[in-house]
Amino acid sequence: MKRKKTSFEPQWRTTPPEPGSWRSIFKWGAPDGFKHPNAKLYAMLKETFGLSDDAFSAPVSAGDDPVTLGDKAPAMPLETIEAFTAICGEENVSVSDYDRVKYSTGKTMEEIYALRDGTPDKVADLIVHPRTEEEISRIVALCHEKKIPLHVFGGGSSVTLGLTPNKGGVTLVMATHMTRVVEFNETNQTITVECGIMGPALEDLLNNAPNTFNTRHPYTCGHFPQSFEFSTVGGWIAAKGSGQQSSYYGDAVDLVLGQTCVTPAGKVITLDYPSTATGPMVNDILKGGEGTYGILTRATLKVFRHTPGTRKNFSFIFPTWQDAVNATREISQAECGMPSVFRISDPEETYIGLKQHGIEGTPLDTFMTFKGYKSGQRCLLLGHTEGEKGFSKNVCKNVRRIAKANGAMSLTGYPVKLWQHGRFNDPYLREDLNDYGVVIDTLETGVKWDNLHQVHMGVRKYIKERPDTLCMTHCSHIYPQGTNLYFIFIGKFETRDEFVAFQRGIIQSIEENGGTLSHHHGVGRMMAPLMEKHLGKGQMDTLKALKKHFDPNNIMNPGGTLGLDEPTEP
Amino acid sequence: MKRKKTSFEPQWRTTPPEPGSWRSIFKWGAPDGFKHPNAKLYAMLKETFGLSDDAFSAPVSAGDDPVTLGDKAPAMPLETIEAFTAICGEENVSVSDYDRVKYSTGKTMEEIYALRDGTPDKVADLIVHPRTEEEISRIVALCHEKKIPLHVFGGGSSVTLGLTPNKGGVTLVMATHMTRVVEFNETNQTITVECGIMGPALEDLLNNAPNTFNTRHPYTCGHFPQSFEFSTVGGWIAAKGSGQQSSYYGDAVDLVLGQTCVTPAGKVITLDYPSTATGPMVNDILKGGEGTYGILTRATLKVFRHTPGTRKNFSFIFPTWQDAVNATREISQAECGMPSVFRISDPEETYIGLKQHGIEGTPLDTFMTFKGYKSGQRCLLLGHTEGEKGFSKNVCKNVRRIAKANGAMSLTGYPVKLWQHGRFNDPYLREDLNDYGVVIDTLETGVKWDNLHQVHMGVRKYIKERPDTLCMTHCSHIYPQGTNLYFIFIGKFETRDEFVAFQRGIIQSIEENGGTLSHHHGVGRMMAPLMEKHLGKGQMDTLKALKKHFDPNNIMNPGGTLGLDEPTEP
Ligand SMILES: Cc1cc2nc3c(=O)[nH]c(=O)nc-3n(C[C@H](O)[C@H](O)[C@H](O)COP(=O)(O)OP(=O)(O)OC[C@H]3O[C@@H](n4cnc5c(N)ncnc54)[C@H](O)[C@@H]3O)c2cc1C
Ligand SMILES: Cc1cc2nc3c(=O)[nH]c(=O)nc-3n(C[C@H](O)[C@H](O)[C@H](O)COP(=O)(O)OP(=O)(O)OC[C@H]3O[C@@H](n4cnc5c(N)ncnc54)[C@H](O)[C@@H]3O)c2cc1C
Repeated sequence: MKRKKTSFEPQWRTTPPEPGSWRSIFKWGAPDGFKHPNAKLYAMLKETFGLSDDAFSAPVSAGDDPVTLGDKAPAMPLETIEAFTAICGEENVSVSDYDRVKYSTGKTMEEIYALRDGTPDKVADLIVHPRTEEEISRIVALCHEKKIPLHVFGGGSSVTLGLTPNKGGVTLVMATHMTRVVEFNETNQTITVECGIMGPALEDLLNNAPNTFNTRHPYTCGHFPQSFEFSTVGGWIAAKGSGQQSSYYGDAVDLVLGQTCVTPAGKVITLDYPSTATGPMVNDILKGGEGTYGILTRATLKVFRHTPGTRKNFSFIFPTWQDAVNATREISQAECGMPSVFRISDPEETYIGLKQHGIEGTPLDTFMTFKGYKSGQRCLLLGHTEGEKGFSKNVCKNVRRIAKANGAMSLTGYPVKLWQHGRFNDPYLREDLNDYGVVIDTLETGVKWDNLHQVHMGVRKYIKERPDTLCMTHCSHIYPQGTNLYFIFIGKFETRDEFVAFQRGIIQSIEENGGTLSHHHGVGRMMAPLMEKHLGKGQMDTLKALKKHFDPNNIMNPGGTLGLDEPTEP
Repeated sequence: MKRKKTSFEPQWRTTPPEPGSWRSIFKWGAPDGFKHPNAKLYAMLKETFGLSDDAFSAPVSAGDDPVTLGDKAPAMPLETIEAFTAICGEENVSVSDYDRVKYSTGKTMEEIYALRDGTPDKVADLIVHPRTEEEISRIVALCHEKKIPLHVFGGGSSVTLGLTPNKGGVTLVMATHMTRVVEFNETNQTITVECGIMGPALEDLLNNAPNTFNTRHPYTCGHFPQSFEFSTVGGWIAAKGSGQQSSYYGDAVDLVLGQTCVTPAGKVITLDYPSTATGPMVNDILKGGEGTYGILTRATLKVFRHTPGTRKNFSFIFPTWQDAVNATREISQAECGMPSVFRISDPEETYIGLKQHGIEGTPLDTFMTFKGYKSGQRCLLLGHTEGEKGFSKNVCKNVRRIAKANGAMSLTGYPVKLWQHGRFNDPYLREDLNDYGVVIDTLETGVKWDNLHQVHMGVRKYIKERPDTLCMTHCSHIYPQGTNLYFIFIGKFETRDEFVAFQRGIIQSIEENGGTLSHHHGVGRMMAPLMEKHLGKGQMDTLKALKKHFDPNNIMNPGGTLGLDEPTEP
């Protein structure tokens, strides 16, 4: 024990970034939030990349300088700027370098590379914090008339270059003022909110509804992406997100009954009936637009009885990936209801997970191996059920039954607790690794049960052909007809270009192996070049026709988003 | 008993209509299928309408003459007709009066009035039975080029004037050849079919999948509209239907993962992933088009494990409608899973139902009254659960618990058996009643829990203001956020015009009281004039923009459908 304490540990950053610095923009989450690689992960990284402690002694460009854009002054006449201040008030309009950078960037690795170097790709000319839907309507009309590009910034957690203002213009920040609750309707079990509200504010309101709204029950929103704490309702809908409990609650789009969307062609309001046969659902058309059709100002969401007391945790180890997949599919098709958190990790993710949590070499490890669950083959399934007590219990019972029938051994509910602990914190690891040139990034795709293995193997093949690159994969959003594959890859990259070329290759590999271009991160400008190839001309022409209708002057999030307005060769 | 046997019974028709007659077109269902009003219903009708047996001695115009269109020859040049025969073969193209009438009519009361009189409103010029998607593509291209109106006839069960060829032209019949199974995929639990396949063919295939497709399990399609036996997959999707087990399986649109739609703008194929974040879902846009955007040729549908053995029937009587509604809402929001069949009847429907089934005046009736369930106030809830054994049992347990907590008394599973017996047969009653000038018709709407009572009371008020008119109402499609209201009204009408004026008033009353224009019958040309008022300009403009994209020459089901191309004042 003594020896461990004195062994080298990199100087992971433990202080919040300087206000006004590049780092304060690209750092994930709360300024004072951190999660450092533990000793086991650190050791594994050194081993994988053949590095010594020396490589972790001096950080690469850490982005500590104050943000400056040098000569990139806003390309917007003063009178235009004044037209915006006339609408929203001086205090809600900014041309500061800092704001222009902050609200022009999402959370992709390439954006982080650029900010570390102090060379952001593109920035908006003007940042506006609208206070009301009425103001947003006036802004959209103004931009439409003057053909000014207009972007919407929710939480800024886009990982698809969804926020890059390729043609400059204005970015609206939704999370400053557009965060009000319009109505909580316990009879209908719905809440109507403005779309800039973030996860925790929404969930707290719902959990505390008996106090806040004098309701009979507490409620939950059911949508918990890993970015939950720093993303908005508008971003969830616009990028078609999926939360960690989606197998039970549904994807973001499933939660949205009605919306108001302000488009250059006018305001579109959809009605919040649970079901209607009055033609194609415009309400669905407004989901997934990623700011290219209009600005979502309000949404009426389903809410659910909050039943934390009925949760039942489970975890199992399977002999092989095939067994874990089979069990997961069988559970999803058994007509017994769905677990809420519901995940399986492939052999490499299981291996790294067990290693990181110190299971390797313990009696449990030996026991698993003895029982035929061999490292490098074995796979972890974990999750929990919820809902009404009998329902939750019965789902858990079925999970157990089906897992056992597929050769699994229970590992108790403990691993779920470990997972729950890290469920929103793992992204904090990224800056620590990046500080020493190690990249951790993710890509994800939707698959059908019958092509899961091809996509998994094909994409892994591509990633693992690169020397010294880790690739962990899990499925975490389960449907009776299929699931998603979430790839986490870790590697050393010399340059941003090297990284980008490799990463684009993964996207291509996903597409070629038959996965969707995105299961829940959206398309942004990153997957856009492959959209027509993936969706086919018939679908793309339809999306473009809608674009032309809603936004004839192409001012809404222009410059490539969703492949609507740029040449689309890969 | 003797007396009853000799008492007068109208000469209900018991023989199939003459082939070639008007009656053979408007009669519901199987030619030799009948369900006659029983003695109790007959007595009640006489009482309600103040009629004697005399009124039931000579039928009104019964439509027994052979169909003829007199001078209404097809308004289509021979060379155009030849172009269609060149595509589909002579045997698949018809200009006969009979076919032109048959495939130009749906099942609304006003169409039935017209056929009884031998005066159909509008008929297509040409009837075509395409054999392949390829042929359909060529037909659409031809009609697009020559601006020939083109209609799609699925099962012909439309109750919204969805099939009326207002501008003549061609009608394609899907159920003749376009009925093949393209793929059954047990891994993904999906079936891909051509869209002309009807309910029983599909369900039989699925129930017998272990034999037919060598699957491990039998399956079910989960969609059972009352018109199940005579409607097609294409019609289910196009008119956004909802089956009697929708509370568990979902509405028709929920079952559709992928589609092929042949439009004048080209073929649109959507991908059958269970979930994807690649922009707005074109797959959803293609649902509910009612033939105005294009022709659905193929659909990939979710299927479900068939678990009839786990069904648990339940029925309860509640003191009041309010109690029944409260219990239903509570069940739907309890996070315990949903029953499959799940219905509540309002006091008048409960009254008539109990009367019709001979409960009135029995010891059970007395007992119910004694227990406080008073006739005219009491309401019936019935249904059954299904799914995995423990799931089904637990849902039933919760139904019982919540029903009791809302003042209900169990009536055992027996009423469910009665209901099951009539579930597809009640429509056969219509011709018998119509034969003596009594009209039975239905209208339906979607509501939220918080406006259910207003819509129910408002619409009932309108209907009951008409003297001697029965109005039975139930909810049969239940969601956590609301339900539908299904109004059955029975009255004597002197003329078609009198009926139509009254019926349009109901639609208006639904809209004004805040219901949707349709929950599951679609819009057709009947609800179309109110579409813009109901949906608002923003939504209607969006639907029209899509129309313009898919069908720039307005050839697809033109003349009012969905309110896309006609003046829209009511
Ligand atoms: C560490 C990390 C973990 C993540 N984990 C998950 C996860 O588990 N599940 C998941 O689904 N996603 C995840 N994401 C991706 C991202 O958080 C989601 O796409 C999220 O839904 C975006 O919300 P946001 O408010 O941050 O939107 P932003 O990033 O601000 O915007 C995303 C896109 O939506 C548009 N947009 C935003 N608001 C509106 C609006 N009101 N009207 C119109 N358009 C709008 C933007 O213009 C942009 O195109 C993760 C991202 C990170 C960085
Ligand atoms: C007695 C009776 C009971 C009913 N009960 C129910 C019920 O319980 N639930 C319910 O949902 N509905 C019910 N309906 C309404 C009707 O059955 C549904 O709307 C059904 O979905 C229509 O299917 P169909 O094949 O008969 O379509 P059709 O009536 O032939 O057509 C309906 C509409 O869809 C279009 N269409 C049909 N096929 C295609 C295609 N392949 N591509 C594009 N467009 C197409 C037609 O052009 C038309 O506009 C009932 C009707 C009757 C008469």
